[in-house]
Amino acid sequence: MTPPITKGGTKLSTFYEVAEKKLQVLANGSVTTPKGFTAGGMHCGIKRKRKDLGWLYSEVPAEAAGVYTTNLFQAAPLIVTKESVAKEGKLQGIIVNSGKANTCTGEQGMLDAYEMRSQFTKAIGIKEHYAAVVSTGLIGDLLPMYKINSGITQIPDAMTSNAPTDFEKAILTTDTFTKNVAVQLEINGKQISIGGVAKGSGMIHPNMATMLGFITTDANIHHQDLHQALKEITNETFNCISVDGDSSTNDMVLAMANGLAGNEPLTKDHVDWSTFVDGLKFVCESLSKQIARDGEGATKLVEVQVNGVASDQAARNIAKTVISSNLVKTAIHGEDPNWGRIVVAVGYSGETLDPHQLTVAIGSVKVVNQGLPLSFNEEEAKKELEKEHVTLYIDFHQGNGKGNAWGCDLSYEYVRINASYRT
Amino acid sequence: MTPPITKGGTKLSTFYEVAEKKLQVLANGSVTTPKGFTAGGMHCGIKRKRKDLGWLYSEVPAEAAGVYTTNLFQAAPLIVTKESVAKEGKLQGIIVNSGKANTCTGEQGMLDAYEMRSQFTKAIGIKEHYAAVVSTGLIGDLLPMYKINSGITQIPDAMTSNAPTDFEKAILTTDTFTKNVAVQLEINGKQISIGGVAKGSGMIHPNMATMLGFITTDANIHHQDLHQALKEITNETFNCISVDGDSSTNDMVLAMANGLAGNEPLTKDHVDWSTFVDGLKFVCESLSKQIARDGEGATKLVEVQVNGVASDQAARNIAKTVISSNLVKTAIHGEDPNWGRIVVAVGYSGETLDPHQLTVAIGSVKVVNQGLPLSFNEEEAKKELEKEHVTLYIDFHQGNGKGNAWGCDLSYEYVRINASYRT
Repeated sequence: MTPPITKGGTKLSTFYEVAEKKLQVLANGSVTTPKGFTAGGMHCGIKRKRKDLGWLYSEVPAEAAGVYTTNLFQAAPLIVTKESVAKEGKLQGIIVNSGKANTCTGEQGMLDAYEMRSQFTKAIGIKEHYAAVVSTGLIGDLLPMYKINSGITQIPDAMTSNAPTDFEKAILTTDTFTKNVAVQLEINGKQISIGGVAKGSGMIHPNMATMLGFITTDANIHHQDLHQALKEITNETFNCISVDGDSSTNDMVLAMANGLAGNEPLTKDHVDWSTFVDGLKFVCESLSKQIARDGEGATKLVEVQVNGVASDQAARNIAKTVISSNLVKTAIHGEDPNWGRIVVAVGYSGETLDPHQLTVAIGSVKVVNQGLPLSFNEEEAKKELEKEHVTLYIDFHQGNGKGNAWGCDLSYEYVRINASYRT
Repeated sequence: MTPPITKGGTKLSTFYEVAEKKLQVLANGSVTTPKGFTAGGMHCGIKRKRKDLGWLYSEVPAEAAGVYTTNLFQAAPLIVTKESVAKEGKLQGIIVNSGKANTCTGEQGMLDAYEMRSQFTKAIGIKEHYAAVVSTGLIGDLLPMYKINSGITQIPDAMTSNAPTDFEKAILTTDTFTKNVAVQLEINGKQISIGGVAKGSGMIHPNMATMLGFITTDANIHHQDLHQALKEITNETFNCISVDGDSSTNDMVLAMANGLAGNEPLTKDHVDWSTFVDGLKFVCESLSKQIARDGEGATKLVEVQVNGVASDQAARNIAKTVISSNLVKTAIHGEDPNWGRIVVAVGYSGETLDPHQLTVAIGSVKVVNQGLPLSFNEEEAKKELEKEHVTLYIDFHQGNGKGNAWGCDLSYEYVRINASYRT
C-alpha cells in the first residue's frame, strides 16, 4: 500500500510534494519570469474581439527543443517550426495566432506559415530560422494574412513593454482561463528560473483540440540535453492528458533556454541535473493539470494515480484509460462513487495483472480491496467527489511502476460547447 | 472512389445491400424463428418492476459457440458459461438475469453462478453443462439468489408458451428498446433460419456497459465451424461497436445451432458456406446497429464506412477511432458539418497513410478531397446530419481494405443518464 491511499487528502501527487521542497514556486510566474524573455499579445482581427496574436522573445538566441504531435495531419506552422528548430537547435522568437489552425490548407497554408515567420523575423530583427510559428483554432480555413501581417508590424513597438498575460490570452481558443507557472531553483549556486504557459481546453485525450505549451528558462543547457529532458517529461505530463497518437494536428510543446543565468552547462552528468529535471517536470505537470482542469465544461480536475504495477508505462496506460472513460467521467460529474466503472476501465486497459490484487480508493475512501468491493461510507466517498479536485488511487501491489494521468468530469456543458462550436 | 461516396443515400452498407439479395429478412424475427427454440422472460424481483429473468431453450442439444469479453475482470457467470461450452461444445438452454452483473463478487459470486446453472438445468431437465448462465447490471452486488431460484421454479410452466419478446425484455438494463432480427436462407435446397437478440445501450466503445448477443439457428453445423464463423463475424460487427480490450466484464455473444433444418453439415467446403456466413453476418450487423442506435441518450445512429486503405483491420481501426471521438459525436449531435474533427480523428488512428489522398463525405456531401477541404453546400450537409441515420464515408484510395463501425451521437441526455445511474 502506498501512502496516498491511507493518507488521502487533496495533494496532487507524491512527486509534487517532494519537488516543492527543492523548488520555489513563484506567485504570478510566467514565461517571462526567467531572465531575458519578453512576451505580449494583441487583437489583430482573426477573432471577433479577443486577443489572437501573441509573441515570445528572448534577448539572445536560446537553445531550443520541441515535441510535436504525431497526428497524420500536421499543421503547416508545425512543419515550419520543426524546420526552424532542426536547423541550429536555436530559437529567439515565437509567433502564435489563435482562431485559425492553418491545417488542411495545402500549399497556400505552407506559404502563409513561411510568410508569417518571415514577416515576424524581419519585424523584430532576428534570423528567419530562429523563429517558431504556431497556429491554433478552426481547421481548414486559410489564415487572413493581411490581418496577421498588419498585427506583426505593431509588434516592435509593443515589445518595449513586457506583457506576459497578454501573451497567455492571445493563444487561447475555448479555454476559460490562462495557464501559467514559474519556479526558481539553484544550479551551481546560481539562481535559475523555469517558466511556462499553456493553452488547451478541448476534450484532450482521448480526442483532441490543440494543446500548446511554451517553456522558457534562463538556464544554460545544450538543445540536445534540453530535448531529451523535455521529451521524457512530456511523456509523463502533457502526454498523460493529450496522448501520443491521439493528438491534434497542431499540438506542440516548445522550450527555450537562453543561458542568461550563467550556470555551468547542464548535462546528465551535472550534479544538479535532477534538480533541473524536477523543476522542468514541475512546470510541465502544473500546466498539464491546468489544462485538464479547464477541460470544456469541466467542473472538476480529476487525477488518477496508479501504483504497484510492472512498469511506469503500464501505470500511465491504466491511469489514462481510467481518466478517458466517459462512464467514469460522468459518474464523477454526478458525484456518484460508482467504483464498478473504475474497475471495468482498469480491466480493459489491456495490461496483464492479477485482478485479485486490486485496491481502489476515491480520495481517502478505500472502495475496493483485493479486487472485491468494501463496504464503505457512501457519504464520505461522496464528499471526496464533491471536491473540486478529485483523486482516484489504483494499486495492484505487484511492482514498482507508477504513473499519473489528469482529466476532468464530463458535463452537460461539454456537450453544449461541442455541439455548437463551429456554427 | 468507391460507389457509396458519389452515390450517397441512406443505405447502411454495401454488404447489407448484397446480402439482402440472398436472404429474406423476416418481420418480427427473433431467436425463436429457427425451428425448435422457445424463449420467455419474467419479473423475479431483482429490478423493481421490469422483467429481469429470461430463458432460451432448444428442444434438442445444440452445437454452441461463444465469444467472450477480454476484460481483466471476468464476471462469475461468464466463467461458468465458458466451462459449459468448453465441455462438449453444446448448449440446450440459456438463463439470463438483468439488474445485477455478478462481477467482483468473489467466491460467493462463483457459487451463485453455479447454483443458478444447477437450479435452471434441474428445473427444465437438461444436463448441467448444457446450460449457459448470463448476468448483466450493476457490478459488485451479490445476486439475490432466493428471488432467482424462486423465478426459476416457474420456468417449466412458463415454457409451455413461447414468448420471445419477454426474453428480449428480460435481458435489458438501460436499453430503451428490444433488439431482434431473423433471416431465412437456403442451404442444400433446405430452408434454414438464423435469429438473434441483443442487449446493450451503454456508451459501448470506447467504454462499456454490458453487450450481450444470443444467436440461434436450425442449421446443421459443428460447433468448431460455428465458432470460427462467429469469431470472425464478431470482429467485423459487435467488436466494431464494443471493441476487444475495451469491453465490459460481462460481454458475450453465444450462438446455438440445433440442426433441425436437416441440411448437410455446414463446413468451409460446403457449397453454401458463404451464404450461411453472410446470413450470420447480417444478423450480427443488424444487432450491432440496433445497439449503437440505442446508445444512452443517442438521437441518431452513426455509421462510419472506411475504404481504400491497406487492410480491413486498418479500415476498422480508423472507423472505430472516428466513431469514438467525443468531438465528432457532439458535432453530429449539434448537426454541425465540422469535418475538421473527422480529419483529426482519422489522423490519430495510428494508421500510416498518405494524408493527401483522403476523401471525406457526410452522407452524399463530399467535404474533403485529396486531404483538402471542398467548398460544399452547408445546408445540404446539415440535412445529412439531421437524418436519424448519419453515414460518414472515409476513403484513402490506397488499397482494398474496407471496414465499418457504428455508434451514436453524444447528447446532454447521455450525461444525465450516466451522472445518475447508480444512486
